[in-house]
Amino acid sequence: MRGLLIGRFQPFHKGHVYVVKKVLREVDEIIIGIGSAQLSHTLENPFTAGERLMMIANSLAENGIEKNYYIIPIQDVNNNSLWVSHVRSLTPPFTKVYSGNTLVKRLFSEVGVEVKTPPMFNRRVYSGTEIRRRMLEGEPWEDLVPEAVVRVVKEVQGVERLRDLAKTDKA
Amino acid sequence: MRGLLIGRFQPFHKGHVYVVKKVLREVDEIIIGIGSAQLSHTLENPFTAGERLMMIANSLAENGIEKNYYIIPIQDVNNNSLWVSHVRSLTPPFTKVYSGNTLVKRLFSEVGVEVKTPPMFNRRVYSGTEIRRRMLEGEPWEDLVPEAVVRVVKEVQGVERLRDLAKTDKA
Amino acid sequence: MRGLLIGRFQPFHKGHVYVVKKVLREVDEIIIGIGSAQLSHTLENPFTAGERLMMIANSLAENGIEKNYYIIPIQDVNNNSLWVSHVRSLTPPFTKVYSGNTLVKRLFSEVGVEVKTPPMFNRRVYSGTEIRRRMLEGEPWEDLVPEAVVRVVKEVQGVERLRDLAKTDKA
Amino acid sequence: MRGLLIGRFQPFHKGHVYVVKKVLREVDEIIIGIGSAQLSHTLENPFTAGERLMMIANSLAENGIEKNYYIIPIQDVNNNSLWVSHVRSLTPPFTKVYSGNTLVKRLFSEVGVEVKTPPMFNRRVYSGTEIRRRMLEGEPWEDLVPEAVVRVVKEVQGVERLRDLAKTDKA
Amino acid sequence: MRGLLIGRFQPFHKGHVYVVKKVLREVDEIIIGIGSAQLSHTLENPFTAGERLMMIANSLAENGIEKNYYIIPIQDVNNNSLWVSHVRSLTPPFTKVYSGNTLVKRLFSEVGVEVKTPPMFNRRVYSGTEIRRRMLEGEPWEDLVPEAVVRVVKEVQGVERLRDLAKTDKA
Amino acid sequence: MRGLLIGRFQPFHKGHVYVVKKVLREVDEIIIGIGSAQLSHTLENPFTAGERLMMIANSLAENGIEKNYYIIPIQDVNNNSLWVSHVRSLTPPFTKVYSGNTLVKRLFSEVGVEVKTPPMFNRRVYSGTEIRRRMLEGEPWEDLVPEAVVRVVKEVQGVERLRDLAKTDKA
Repeated sequence: MRGLLIGRFQPFHKGHVYVVKKVLREVDEIIIGIGSAQLSHTLENPFTAGERLMMIANSLAENGIEKNYYIIPIQDVNNNSLWVSHVRSLTPPFTKVYSGNTLVKRLFSEVGVEVKTPPMFNRRVYSGTEIRRRMLEGEPWEDLVPEAVVRVVKEVQGVERLRDLAKTDKA
Repeated sequence: MRGLLIGRFQPFHKGHVYVVKKVLREVDEIIIGIGSAQLSHTLENPFTAGERLMMIANSLAENGIEKNYYIIPIQDVNNNSLWVSHVRSLTPPFTKVYSGNTLVKRLFSEVGVEVKTPPMFNRRVYSGTEIRRRMLEGEPWEDLVPEAVVRVVKEVQGVERLRDLAKTDKA
Repeated sequence: MRGLLIGRFQPFHKGHVYVVKKVLREVDEIIIGIGSAQLSHTLENPFTAGERLMMIANSLAENGIEKNYYIIPIQDVNNNSLWVSHVRSLTPPFTKVYSGNTLVKRLFSEVGVEVKTPPMFNRRVYSGTEIRRRMLEGEPWEDLVPEAVVRVVKEVQGVERLRDLAKTDKA
Repeated sequence: MRGLLIGRFQPFHKGHVYVVKKVLREVDEIIIGIGSAQLSHTLENPFTAGERLMMIANSLAENGIEKNYYIIPIQDVNNNSLWVSHVRSLTPPFTKVYSGNTLVKRLFSEVGVEVKTPPMFNRRVYSGTEIRRRMLEGEPWEDLVPEAVVRVVKEVQGVERLRDLAKTDKA
Repeated sequence: MRGLLIGRFQPFHKGHVYVVKKVLREVDEIIIGIGSAQLSHTLENPFTAGERLMMIANSLAENGIEKNYYIIPIQDVNNNSLWVSHVRSLTPPFTKVYSGNTLVKRLFSEVGVEVKTPPMFNRRVYSGTEIRRRMLEGEPWEDLVPEAVVRVVKEVQGVERLRDLAKTDKA
Repeated sequence: MRGLLIGRFQPFHKGHVYVVKKVLREVDEIIIGIGSAQLSHTLENPFTAGERLMMIANSLAENGIEKNYYIIPIQDVNNNSLWVSHVRSLTPPFTKVYSGNTLVKRLFSEVGVEVKTPPMFNRRVYSGTEIRRRMLEGEPWEDLVPEAVVRVVKEVQGVERLRDLAKTDKA
């Protein structure tokens, strides 16, 4: 049995690792769909799909997970009615979806696919929003993500990128 | 003479029925353009174009209007300069436009098409915004729409959809 | 029960009228989907969706059919995997599809929707390709279409348009 | 050497003229990229790309600048990762970029292109936002723009357009 | 009075220079619209819009034409019904169109804009198709284009690009 | 070091397996980009990106390759100038590209990326075109692909799909 976990992963963090491990106890293979794959270089979506894919693959390896997963970038379609078909056309067949996003849940449930809210792990702290806030304000964020993510963020100068994007436009 | 009435109809309500009847006294045929046809499953735009089309056709039948109208889904184009040509390419020729939307009015008037603000009927209550608010908060909304719309909303579980979409994202 | 008839209707002709009448014996309401709605002004697709919609509505009226149908422009999506969802989001629910197009048939049958090849009426002559050829070459084509279509083609100078488009580019 | 100046120019004003003159002391030719070229008829982006292009060309002529520049409309792409390639495909080669926009600066600097914040001229007053505010509120704005811009705005009834767009939707 | 000359200019050649000069005797300013601006790196459309823009500007300078023109890249829209509005939104107002393309002529004439077939200059030889053929087959092509075009083609290694694209795919 | 192998994989076959193995001797990790990911249900592109992804992953597993690869669906962009940036935004960084496609080779080489034509294995027989031809004409094709591909094709009724698509349109 295959399950789909959908997220934007801006960035991938330890809460996500926890969810992936939990899900892998329930399914044989996990498909990790990188949502809003076309977005990058914004305050809400600083990292490209390729960068996020690297974060995820390396983090899983770091946690001893080297197979039984697919990581698939999924671009938005500007039409919610097409989104489920869009996801299905890009992924191997799955029978379960894991997401806490209310739109994702509604869209899949309307076509009869079971959606489970994944078990979360201290969601107030392990959240993309919190991690981006810390990056911006110079607070420590490294403990919230796998070491592999720290490396990718460094390599692409992610913190500098985020801070540059946050600067007030002066011209 | 043919007139165009443009709206999003999220959902179609008795105020719209009133407008259609008024317009039909001034024109031979009415074109009802369903704007933002590609949108659905959002708090502002919960219903698909197909669902809205059903609401409109059944409501008109309920009011004894069975001919002399066209209902046409019109998707947005992300370029206001193209919008009038876009509408015209999808509809029979028309010589009058009925809309209270300031952008619609401006775009048509710039190309020399007469635009009338349709007579409204207690707009504070008979409004999509108000009806969606009532659906969300569990207040009675059924009186504001034709019976046909109540049936369509029930059939597609529209109230549940809206409430699901309004839930705070927990994951 | 509602049935969907999909075609490009370039232009709508007597063969189509025949099919609509046949289908209306099997279903309560017919949805006529105008495919490739965004195309016009080409040799294969000379007429806009709005022009085609006029042809269909007027032809049906001419044949005494004034209700129980919906005519809906359907733009192409550049992804066959999304097409069925796209059609469904724009139309009232339907349980049967009528089409002879092999792609349409395949796409609907893969999602479990019954597709019937509509009964055709002397398809060699009553075909859009043949009618466009006659228009181009100055042969009589008017007998192959309802009078309403002759009127619309005249009104929009359809034959001149087609011939203009066929001229060899001289610059 | 060629430099690129990117802006939305809603509208082009004397601060922009000042920048163009400064930049022309540093480069042989200036490319003026009209950003968000597809936008018009909104409160933030009232003018079409064509109107903005007229404003710029006529304003430069008014200031004695009649050569050594290119004015190029640049539509948005909904993917920041593609934006630099998009700009490059539409413009002559350039080695320097002038922009104060933090996203523009970041995107070019990530691919190794030098970006300079252009010298600004009393930015609090000479700003598109301020000029559009004055137009809306009936305050004098004409002094902030070249005479050529006053003429274009009059010709296209730009102030009326802006005020129409600002009206509350009454229907 | 302003005139619009539309072409793909793959590449710009002496026939085009001849037309521009002729047109400039009839209008005060010429708008040169680079059609299919989004295309490049194909056998039919080897050059980017930016490269074509360079070719045109430099060729005009070489011919003593340094003002009274605008060169504007125009991307295709996949809907002929929107094309005229699209062109208008990107260009200064014009009252005459020069084109030999039958679709362009038809689209403008349907909205009442006068279209003239530009005077051509030995079109069998001075044609983009012929020049690209010569580039591919190693025949002399340089005499058919302004010197400025030879320089741009060299700078971007245009002949090598074209030949590479023509190679049979070996993998 | 990471290498990128681009193909449409319609379907993935033993020639591809051979190439992947060869490439893995030269690089540490291989990125397998599924080109034209949005296409499916056509004679040239019968399989969805998700189906192709399954074929590839299962075939690699069958050949003992379970790590050190990424499989990434890559949708076309209708602008060759943006394609390299598009690929890069979806993939981990790579320093080598393997492709025999002349456009792919040209686009990468213009931005300075080394492209190698991958070693091919009896390309006349091990080719997607040949395999699809055999499927259509009822000839044996199973030997040309890994067993995993045979299973996926069966599961999605790929041969039936292809034959249905090849039928002449009868309506």
